Amino acid sequence: LIKAWEPSLTQYPLMGIDDDEFATAKKLITKQEVRAVTLGKLQLQDDLIMWDIGAGSGSVSIEASNLLPNGRIFALEKNPQYLAFIRDNLKKFVARNVMLIEAYAPEGLDDLPDPDRVFIGGSGGMLDEIIDAVARRLKPDGRIVLNAVTLDTLTKAVEFLEDHGYTVEVTCVNIAKTRGLTEYKMFEAHNPVYIVAAWKGEE
Amino acid sequence: LIKAWEPSLTQYPLMGIDDDEFATAKKLITKQEVRAVTLGKLQLQDDLIMWDIGAGSGSVSIEASNLLPNGRIFALEKNPQYLAFIRDNLKKFVARNVMLIEAYAPEGLDDLPDPDRVFIGGSGGMLDEIIDAVARRLKPDGRIVLNAVTLDTLTKAVEFLEDHGYTVEVTCVNIAKTRGLTEYKMFEAHNPVYIVAAWKGEE
Amino acid sequence: LIKAWEPSLTQYPLMGIDDDEFATAKKLITKQEVRAVTLGKLQLQDDLIMWDIGAGSGSVSIEASNLLPNGRIFALEKNPQYLAFIRDNLKKFVARNVMLIEAYAPEGLDDLPDPDRVFIGGSGGMLDEIIDAVARRLKPDGRIVLNAVTLDTLTKAVEFLEDHGYTVEVTCVNIAKTRGLTEYKMFEAHNPVYIVAAWKGEE
Amino acid sequence: LIKAWEPSLTQYPLMGIDDDEFATAKKLITKQEVRAVTLGKLQLQDDLIMWDIGAGSGSVSIEASNLLPNGRIFALEKNPQYLAFIRDNLKKFVARNVMLIEAYAPEGLDDLPDPDRVFIGGSGGMLDEIIDAVARRLKPDGRIVLNAVTLDTLTKAVEFLEDHGYTVEVTCVNIAKTRGLTEYKMFEAHNPVYIVAAWKGEE
Repeated sequence: LIKAWEPSLTQYPLMGIDDDEFATAKKLITKQEVRAVTLGKLQLQDDLIMWDIGAGSGSVSIEASNLLPNGRIFALEKNPQYLAFIRDNLKKFVARNVMLIEAYAPEGLDDLPDPDRVFIGGSGGMLDEIIDAVARRLKPDGRIVLNAVTLDTLTKAVEFLEDHGYTVEVTCVNIAKTRGLTEYKMFEAHNPVYIVAAWKGEE
Repeated sequence: LIKAWEPSLTQYPLMGIDDDEFATAKKLITKQEVRAVTLGKLQLQDDLIMWDIGAGSGSVSIEASNLLPNGRIFALEKNPQYLAFIRDNLKKFVARNVMLIEAYAPEGLDDLPDPDRVFIGGSGGMLDEIIDAVARRLKPDGRIVLNAVTLDTLTKAVEFLEDHGYTVEVTCVNIAKTRGLTEYKMFEAHNPVYIVAAWKGEE
Repeated sequence: LIKAWEPSLTQYPLMGIDDDEFATAKKLITKQEVRAVTLGKLQLQDDLIMWDIGAGSGSVSIEASNLLPNGRIFALEKNPQYLAFIRDNLKKFVARNVMLIEAYAPEGLDDLPDPDRVFIGGSGGMLDEIIDAVARRLKPDGRIVLNAVTLDTLTKAVEFLEDHGYTVEVTCVNIAKTRGLTEYKMFEAHNPVYIVAAWKGEE
Repeated sequence: LIKAWEPSLTQYPLMGIDDDEFATAKKLITKQEVRAVTLGKLQLQDDLIMWDIGAGSGSVSIEASNLLPNGRIFALEKNPQYLAFIRDNLKKFVARNVMLIEAYAPEGLDDLPDPDRVFIGGSGGMLDEIIDAVARRLKPDGRIVLNAVTLDTLTKAVEFLEDHGYTVEVTCVNIAKTRGLTEYKMFEAHNPVYIVAAWKGEE
């Protein structure tokens, strides 16, 4: 019975799942390479509690769930189109420890257990309120990771997080890839993503 | 007894371990961000067999071991200084399923079980011979991942892999980071790394 | 009479002309930022002779002509669509010292004076032959600059140039820009361009 | 007599001068590639008036002077070490139309003619005051270009410039270079530079 999910484990990698495997809209998904760096910045382990705010198509939650085998992930999303994507993806990848919450953060956060890790993939114009809510609830050794693609979000995220006393590190990721099956290998750039990581205490 | 490694699991993340936590020389280690993308490209799961050729300080093997909980990793290294680093790191991170092989690849590969995944972090001037040996032994659904920091290695790796009938994808990773604890946030660039991924079949 | 071109000088900058000002196809033009770095690598001055091989829409020749006020530029192009673009652009920007040659290089090079500078923007599958021809004719203190967007061209260019005894430097340029008039500033990446510069003698 | 500078014109390029040719401190100079993109963003021509605020070792002013053959550049610098560099460089490159002003901007700006172009290479903690002063004096078709290497400067520059009604474009430049004379070609990254360009009116 519990074995039902094992074929999935042997079919898909724990991380590094091809973007094409996810039900998603093209501009929505956190691409494979940035997802990998993001997961590294989240420093996931064993039985931690993670919030995924603005879960989009759920790709970060799904790979994170493999890195928190005994933990729980609460994925918040309100957009109906994205919710359909997440449901399909959670089912396909048998992500048993991801709980989908239909809520527009910071709504819905009050009912969740305190997080060890928070990933903010989208803030729907409520970044200040979300960081306020997260800062009140994050455990002392916790980490917040946020992906920004605009200068505005980057600037505000750093400012809000520092205002709440966090040490902040920004990592700019530039990826360019060739396609496997072309006669000649042309490098195609992905748009840069700024990964903001925040924690309490020293660097 | 077997619980001896559990404190390690709760102390360190499965991936995203800080570079400072590894015994290593400064220029040797595959840095955290590139390590994460590399692990994603390796598409690790469950019980696969992986070879880590030119294991350096062992950071890739150690994080990979967390993503292959029932698998085995054979880490080849010959440089005495690096061997000391690997031994320290394997012990510190309680990487039970990493087997250290003191050999200068392609020497030492004959005795290993056929791999599902091969990571080539260093080739010591034997890239052609190593790819020959790997191509003979890699399982049909296997993947090879190689990190190049020079144009020469990148060029030769792509050429040799395509000569052996592999589909090849090159991912150039450019990372720039701010430091957490400075008055102002200056972006410092890491040197670019070209991650070459190869497999049989279509893109 | 000779003043006919002066209004142009006050209307357009010597370099840094907006891409939109050129008649061109979207993927054809060397974009403003890469054009600037390319011109810098060409180290243009006063009265030098420059060949522009595979001139495309002519944007490099046109800005180069402003940096060689007493020099001459021979722009080779054979594609009829591109020739129409070049003619329009040469007229618009009053580039008096650019001579357009309808030829598929290395054809057409024999009739030209020996160059001090050669820019190879496109090679039409004849890279080896073009570099052969250029190497025979380039003045001793000359420089060759080539822009590559594929790994194949990059690899071959470096190999051919080194085979002819040149010192070769490769500069990878990654540009990401925000658009001026959007509510929020999203960074959009341009595909990376590898600028290969070659000369005889020491670094 | 006036010909005294001509040997210089034939010895050095109008732009793309090797960084090694400038008297400078290592971290001070705007490197060749970023200098080229910066000059392009400044859209220099003929007889414009340019202010170079925080001129450092003067490399931008010197190359800009070649692109404003009938214009004038006012280079402001106060740091005694840098002033020595600038003086040496102005002499070496015979930059006749660069006027060196020993002042700590915004001091010293009142006495200068209204600028068509302003380059802010350093602001010494007075960015707000400098942008205020520049905005009062810049001609209607003028352009401001500022190079930021920290997130703080980038953020503040964009904010201040938009507060003054400018359209702002940010260009992130990532450069990685191989060295010409090494056995193998390793790419070495320069730290990214954010080039902020601002003007009145539409994009």
